[in-house]
Amino acid sequence: MTVNLDNKFALFSDLFSPKIVGQFNDLHLKAVKVKGEFVWHSHPETDELFLVHKGELVIDYRDQRNVVRAGEFFVVPRGVEHRPCAAEECEILLIEPAGTVNTGDAGGDRTAAAAWI
Amino acid sequence: MTVNLDNKFALFSDLFSPKIVGQFNDLHLKAVKVKGEFVWHSHPETDELFLVHKGELVIDYRDQRNVVRAGEFFVVPRGVEHRPCAAEECEILLIEPAGTVNTGDAGGDRTAAAAWI
Repeated sequence: MTVNLDNKFALFSDLFSPKIVGQFNDLHLKAVKVKGEFVWHSHPETDELFLVHKGELVIDYRDQRNVVRAGEFFVVPRGVEHRPCAAEECEILLIEPAGTVNTGDAGGDRTAAAAWI
Repeated sequence: MTVNLDNKFALFSDLFSPKIVGQFNDLHLKAVKVKGEFVWHSHPETDELFLVHKGELVIDYRDQRNVVRAGEFFVVPRGVEHRPCAAEECEILLIEPAGTVNTGDAGGDRTAAAAWI
């Protein structure tokens, strides 16, 4: 089945709350809206792929600022501490193993279970 | 490192010849230009994710025609026979395990080894 990203992003408005929009093998494709700063965290067990669908995403490392715009992608290697953020709301597609938690090893109250939409 | 897809697609012009543009975990991200019809094939060992970057891709099944446009994605489940084609040149991003062969179980003279660009 063909999945249209604009249609999926139109279904929700909450920020930093991944929605599962597809699966292949053991991986989930997650639509996420980002605005403001998320928490610093890392995923010791997996790399994480960020594809920017709309807008401009910043992926901060402790020693580096990475900017990713629509039509670009960025891979955060496993274990690397990072903080996604965006000055204006942006729409991203995240691809990572099913079950990966948004706050990784940091946990806390911004942890959000991903559900299918 | 941020990867810009337009920049990667500008580096080559050959059709149905996947170029590796990124990796996460054991998966490769491959940029592919499609025009005309490819061969019928399947991948018994893996699902395959097609994201359309520019233009319109058709993924034929034996009993169904699937159209995927820019901003859309499509998953071909493992073992399902399919034939990618396009009336006009289109640009796609393919995500699949490293080592996946473009012609799958069909083989033949359109088999192309993927190289990094």
